[in-house]
Amino acid sequence: MEGRAPLQRGRRSRDDWGIEFSRIIAFSDGVFAIAITLLVLSLDIPPSAHDLNHSIAEQYPDFLAYVLSFAVIGRLWVLHHRFFSEVTHFDGRLMSLNLLYLGLIVLIPFTTEVLGDYSGQSTAAILYAANIGLTNAAGSFLVYDAVRRGLTKPGMEWIIDNPLRWRGVVAALIFFASIPVALLSTTVAELLWILILLSGFGHRWGRPEPA
Amino acid sequence: MEGRAPLQRGRRSRDDWGIEFSRIIAFSDGVFAIAITLLVLSLDIPPSAHDLNHSIAEQYPDFLAYVLSFAVIGRLWVLHHRFFSEVTHFDGRLMSLNLLYLGLIVLIPFTTEVLGDYSGQSTAAILYAANIGLTNAAGSFLVYDAVRRGLTKPGMEWIIDNPLRWRGVVAALIFFASIPVALLSTTVAELLWILILLSGFGHRWGRPEPA
Amino acid sequence: MEGRAPLQRGRRSRDDWGIEFSRIIAFSDGVFAIAITLLVLSLDIPPSAHDLNHSIAEQYPDFLAYVLSFAVIGRLWVLHHRFFSEVTHFDGRLMSLNLLYLGLIVLIPFTTEVLGDYSGQSTAAILYAANIGLTNAAGSFLVYDAVRRGLTKPGMEWIIDNPLRWRGVVAALIFFASIPVALLSTTVAELLWILILLSGFGHRWGRPEPA
Amino acid sequence: MEGRAPLQRGRRSRDDWGIEFSRIIAFSDGVFAIAITLLVLSLDIPPSAHDLNHSIAEQYPDFLAYVLSFAVIGRLWVLHHRFFSEVTHFDGRLMSLNLLYLGLIVLIPFTTEVLGDYSGQSTAAILYAANIGLTNAAGSFLVYDAVRRGLTKPGMEWIIDNPLRWRGVVAALIFFASIPVALLSTTVAELLWILILLSGFGHRWGRPEPA
Repeated sequence: MEGRAPLQRGRRSRDDWGIEFSRIIAFSDGVFAIAITLLVLSLDIPPSAHDLNHSIAEQYPDFLAYVLSFAVIGRLWVLHHRFFSEVTHFDGRLMSLNLLYLGLIVLIPFTTEVLGDYSGQSTAAILYAANIGLTNAAGSFLVYDAVRRGLTKPGMEWIIDNPLRWRGVVAALIFFASIPVALLSTTVAELLWILILLSGFGHRWGRPEPA
Repeated sequence: MEGRAPLQRGRRSRDDWGIEFSRIIAFSDGVFAIAITLLVLSLDIPPSAHDLNHSIAEQYPDFLAYVLSFAVIGRLWVLHHRFFSEVTHFDGRLMSLNLLYLGLIVLIPFTTEVLGDYSGQSTAAILYAANIGLTNAAGSFLVYDAVRRGLTKPGMEWIIDNPLRWRGVVAALIFFASIPVALLSTTVAELLWILILLSGFGHRWGRPEPA
Repeated sequence: MEGRAPLQRGRRSRDDWGIEFSRIIAFSDGVFAIAITLLVLSLDIPPSAHDLNHSIAEQYPDFLAYVLSFAVIGRLWVLHHRFFSEVTHFDGRLMSLNLLYLGLIVLIPFTTEVLGDYSGQSTAAILYAANIGLTNAAGSFLVYDAVRRGLTKPGMEWIIDNPLRWRGVVAALIFFASIPVALLSTTVAELLWILILLSGFGHRWGRPEPA
Repeated sequence: MEGRAPLQRGRRSRDDWGIEFSRIIAFSDGVFAIAITLLVLSLDIPPSAHDLNHSIAEQYPDFLAYVLSFAVIGRLWVLHHRFFSEVTHFDGRLMSLNLLYLGLIVLIPFTTEVLGDYSGQSTAAILYAANIGLTNAAGSFLVYDAVRRGLTKPGMEWIIDNPLRWRGVVAALIFFASIPVALLSTTVAELLWILILLSGFGHRWGRPEPA
């Protein structure tokens, strides 16, 4: 009886283990949804009614950080969504890498709040850049590793030949590159991030250009 | 191999991409559920046991704001639910517009708390009216855009001919109109919102009157 | 074209509108899950390391309130789960009543925290009893109304003949009855609640005794 | 009519009650996802911009506690996921035990924050060890009880013969054993926990060794 695998850890196909596959996705979606919603906690309720206009207007860096992080998490969720639509098999390793990725997503509300509250300080910008850079790097590795181990539909092998064509890698590199920039000017670093996001919306993310 | 579309971004049908379609809905439901539950954080725990009755009674504007926002988010969720039951195809643009919409939903717990804490101040009322007005406007645009691009079942083309017949547009306009009202009297503005909500419950929302 | 019902509001069967039915349940489960998890926020992090043992031990009423509310919400979720397994059709009215019910569930983390922080004060106990009593009353009405309007499988008609046999009604009545008790002694009221819960676990909830 | 079981409480098969089975899982996943995301609230936003570097660097025990608990909850979720993929039937008792288990999961963000803020104090370490130990014990009992009552696929009977071969039991015992250790040195206790986790990732969790 022990020869069977009652709590099997090996590769399972999405079709045969539908509920289990759905759970991975449901759990990930839950974490994404909660992390994106917790961003609202980074907005501070003004402590007194005196000059409420002013108190709220003064919070504009918090609002900007909110919008930036909402776009970042939303974008990462779309990419996660798109990638998992290519996944045909899963195993413990995919689940662990996915958890690592989610662990970095969950930090974003924290680094966003620090960024909003101390927007002019390079420490805050560096913390934020490191968080988003690492998240993109972990996400890219998740994709790369799954393709390499044959857990996806055919057609994504190009990412093994040339990982730099995967936009998540590019995003990670640019966020890491913005760390030294933030030491000189946080404003330039922040503009850089917005540029990545806007270019990401304009281009096809994670797809090779037609040959 | 690159000619195929490994992370396809184009239009996908709900029937062929069931899990992916479900994820959009699950993520949206998650955000709605968390935003509506975070409303409870706008109720303040009295700081001291001295005269607890009084401290809680004094919070009645917070309770009113809670009830108002619970009804607003609940209503928007019902409408979102009803609209997505008409959707037959989805693409990246629908997902982005849906994210924009959710980004405004997530702000509601914040503007609700400001409204509850500073209910007599026009700034708080304006912030709230702008939040709900923009949410309704973004939701209406989401619907309009999806119908226009043929992502829905037949039978909703009237919204293109006459967007004003879509109640979300009406709600947006009334909330925007309440902004100048709030400069004169926050009480009148708040009564206006309650009227919209009650009329919304009484009428058919988002449906043409029978011709 | 307008003669069709693009955003139909009438009765829909669970079988034909599977995804839409699932959304109601997923949204409800989300709210239950978040409300039950937010209970943890009612436990206070001790402000200083000085005599940490003592600070945590002093919080025992908060822990008791946590356990009580976890059991209450868990029990209500089980009942909600069991009831919806009997539902065959849904409509806007069922969704609105469900939202009302959830709006009372969401308040439980707030009234729990007040109860834990001011456990000896009758105001806190009354607020809690009113919250749980109203939640049970709204839930019972939701069930009664759905059965009366034929939205459930056959076999639940006894609830129309004799609503008092529905344990949710009994729970509501006992919680309301504990309000005057709490004016005299909060300890007696709290013991009463624990008794209801324990008896609820011992008996069949919401089922007629065999005739 | 009363002879039928309108709100049946007995054993139900997963295949016949697909939506109801999914709800148990969806609710559990929701609680896991929220609990793991609330961990971020244990990281404190520095109160002033003065020496931000220093304030954040000083929080390293909070970051360590965050990483530790993220790994713990992630691991428990994977195990819950794997166990429920073996479950073929469910009943009220399984749901109650699952709720008890979730009630202990929900406490983890609280004990994590206490551990991060007072990492050198044995009270904080004991509280944490008790929380994780009890969670593992409750989870192991859930599994044991379900297997014993025939709610799972064949092949897990070894857990009845020898519960100690179930790694959840081992984890519970080691966490309980770390309580007296923490009285002497919190650092040694924490190293012990990390060892359990790392060994857990290295070995097969909850599976008998090949005979």
